[in-house]
Amino acid sequence: MTTPIRTAEVIAVGSELLGWTRLDTNSLFIAEQLATVGIELKSKSVAGDDRGLIAALFAQSLQRVDLVVLTGGLGPTDDDLTRDAVADALGLELIEDEAITARIRHRFERRGLPMPAVNRRQAMVPRGATSLPNPNGSAPGILIEADHRLVVLLPGPPRELQPMLAALCSAAGAIARRAGSERLHKVSLFTTGLSESHVDEIAQPIYSKWREATPPIETTILATPGQVEVHLTLRSAETASAQQVLLKARGELVDALGEAAFCTDGRLLPQVVGDMLRERGLTLAAAESCTGGLLLQRLTDVAGSSAYVKGGVVAYSNELKTRWLGVDAALIDAHGAVSEVVAAAMVEGLRARIGADVCVAITGVAGPGGGTADKPVGTVVTAMQIADQPLSVTTHWFPGGREMVRLQSTQAVLDRIRRMLTG
Amino acid sequence: MTTPIRTAEVIAVGSELLGWTRLDTNSLFIAEQLATVGIELKSKSVAGDDRGLIAALFAQSLQRVDLVVLTGGLGPTDDDLTRDAVADALGLELIEDEAITARIRHRFERRGLPMPAVNRRQAMVPRGATSLPNPNGSAPGILIEADHRLVVLLPGPPRELQPMLAALCSAAGAIARRAGSERLHKVSLFTTGLSESHVDEIAQPIYSKWREATPPIETTILATPGQVEVHLTLRSAETASAQQVLLKARGELVDALGEAAFCTDGRLLPQVVGDMLRERGLTLAAAESCTGGLLLQRLTDVAGSSAYVKGGVVAYSNELKTRWLGVDAALIDAHGAVSEVVAAAMVEGLRARIGADVCVAITGVAGPGGGTADKPVGTVVTAMQIADQPLSVTTHWFPGGREMVRLQSTQAVLDRIRRMLTG
Repeated sequence: MTTPIRTAEVIAVGSELLGWTRLDTNSLFIAEQLATVGIELKSKSVAGDDRGLIAALFAQSLQRVDLVVLTGGLGPTDDDLTRDAVADALGLELIEDEAITARIRHRFERRGLPMPAVNRRQAMVPRGATSLPNPNGSAPGILIEADHRLVVLLPGPPRELQPMLAALCSAAGAIARRAGSERLHKVSLFTTGLSESHVDEIAQPIYSKWREATPPIETTILATPGQVEVHLTLRSAETASAQQVLLKARGELVDALGEAAFCTDGRLLPQVVGDMLRERGLTLAAAESCTGGLLLQRLTDVAGSSAYVKGGVVAYSNELKTRWLGVDAALIDAHGAVSEVVAAAMVEGLRARIGADVCVAITGVAGPGGGTADKPVGTVVTAMQIADQPLSVTTHWFPGGREMVRLQSTQAVLDRIRRMLTG
Repeated sequence: MTTPIRTAEVIAVGSELLGWTRLDTNSLFIAEQLATVGIELKSKSVAGDDRGLIAALFAQSLQRVDLVVLTGGLGPTDDDLTRDAVADALGLELIEDEAITARIRHRFERRGLPMPAVNRRQAMVPRGATSLPNPNGSAPGILIEADHRLVVLLPGPPRELQPMLAALCSAAGAIARRAGSERLHKVSLFTTGLSESHVDEIAQPIYSKWREATPPIETTILATPGQVEVHLTLRSAETASAQQVLLKARGELVDALGEAAFCTDGRLLPQVVGDMLRERGLTLAAAESCTGGLLLQRLTDVAGSSAYVKGGVVAYSNELKTRWLGVDAALIDAHGAVSEVVAAAMVEGLRARIGADVCVAITGVAGPGGGTADKPVGTVVTAMQIADQPLSVTTHWFPGGREMVRLQSTQAVLDRIRRMLTG
């Protein structure tokens, strides 16, 4: 019986991944897939199309970990060197696999093309290796058993790599069968309206005790614009009890975080609010000034949003606030376009002229220009009314540049709709 | 005289960079900065907070290249191990630099706080090393001369790392002084409306001859959603002549690509169109259906856009097309909301009701639902009129999912405005 595979390193091959425009993103998917079968990624690297360097990095990785995954460099051209470098490092000869050649030739023939001679390179595999079918491309993957260790070569394009690796990590796959019986179990929780440190302050007394548990629950807090996520993971061979422990743990966090916790199933806020509107049979209209269409754009990014989004006005100029929303020009003159009375009048205009169930308005100073001592950049007024409930108007101040002010404005409005519909 | 530094490797330290949520993005900035002083990045890696592993990776890098840059792991806590690992690998003792301790203590005192004892760790440097000031944080950088090679340790947060590395690569900086006299010179060119392979087909006969030139011009074609970029780079010690060669080369490409080339100074299409509108003193209004506000959002993402964007209507429902744009409901019944006559009527409605100089309308099937045999998902009709020029209506079909259809619709409209204003 061989010892289970517990550790891995990833080597992404391709000179284009060493410039200042492109990152290797495959490693995120690989880290996640390996984690689900309990394999820990110890390090990862990127190498240019340099046979000697790839061979050196690979040989060093193989000294350190149980599994080495190499991605990219399996194409048919001269600068696709991963096969050769791995064969060099392992002292294996490359031989042509006739079955692969036949498959590649067939792929070309289906498109009415002869197989270019260079593609024969893609059928070369180290002696003793197993080829892995690639449903979405011509380059097969390669699996090598090397002295109780496992080496996997996968093509670089994500749509080719992802199903191939998922198959290897699924129950019957070659990586899953060699991994230990432990699996990584995960649950998540999304919040909005609280800063990362505020979430941590609330969550820390709760999750710190889980660290001492057996097995321990690991907690990761991740801030994305307008949203703070809490991810809980647990390594265990017992799926049912692990899930139970995680759900109980998440429940404690949800209780502590209260209304700030808006989702436990991965949906983002525009989707969560959209689903609430759909379930309640409500329609929405918006009047946007400083956000310039961002709120409606985010809502309509969600497929099927035409069921509840009627539309709205981007009243970027004061002229449009008056002409299309009926906001009294004298009101704007007296209080300024960024004021609670103008925001309220924008909602009133929407209600009178569109009559959606939920009417919201945003007006503010997104910057970089336009700020005053009284209303500095980041000052945003939001107003909303749901059916015949009272009008709600809030003045916010958001930090960050133009883009962050705009994003946080829309996030605040969506969150307010959610809370009003929940409450 | 020492030999110049020509090659580098980067090691990013931090277990959080090995999960499935975060990538090391510092390496993009580092690659660009090093390239400007003619230093080539040969490989890069990410290591968890493991002293032995960091030391091993570092020692191996130092065997291969002239410069090793390590980022992260310079904080004050127990899992900040970069200093220790590098000292281990070089066989150097860590000693406290009193000047650094004093600086860190001063940073805390300015905020009225005593320096926590752990922060003294940040003042530990390998004997003989030089500390590098960090204007935006408490962790100083460290520069070590190791047997004609250079080792640089920088803090992980981008706002700390970036000014520190930029200083090292500027004319008087320690990296620039040790680099060769060659510099990397760059120019770029953005196109829209052509696919990546189409751009390559046009550009290839031109750039292939530059490869044979001395020094050769390197050409990179990079596709981003709705835009294909061509980047030309040239290594040379002669700045003036290099720039001249690159500008001439780019001129040839601009001529060959014709109207598809919209920018040579890095501005994106919404900014280019915005600048054209501002220069000509024109205003814009938009009526958006399937794009749901995306066009106006992209235009108003640009600071100062209130000078030319009046605003518009997100007429996501047919009701709003009729009520706010005056589109005859019978027209929608007869031809469907996604039709050239309805798009034209939307523009007409905008002109009558807002009267901007440039009026544009978008209506289409973004998907995933709503497609028919006649008008499949991806069918988008755009219409626009500039002042009293004739109305222009186009039916497009865009591939990709909902997000790509929406983005390409707005890109097509922006590009059409640009061409009409240029022509």
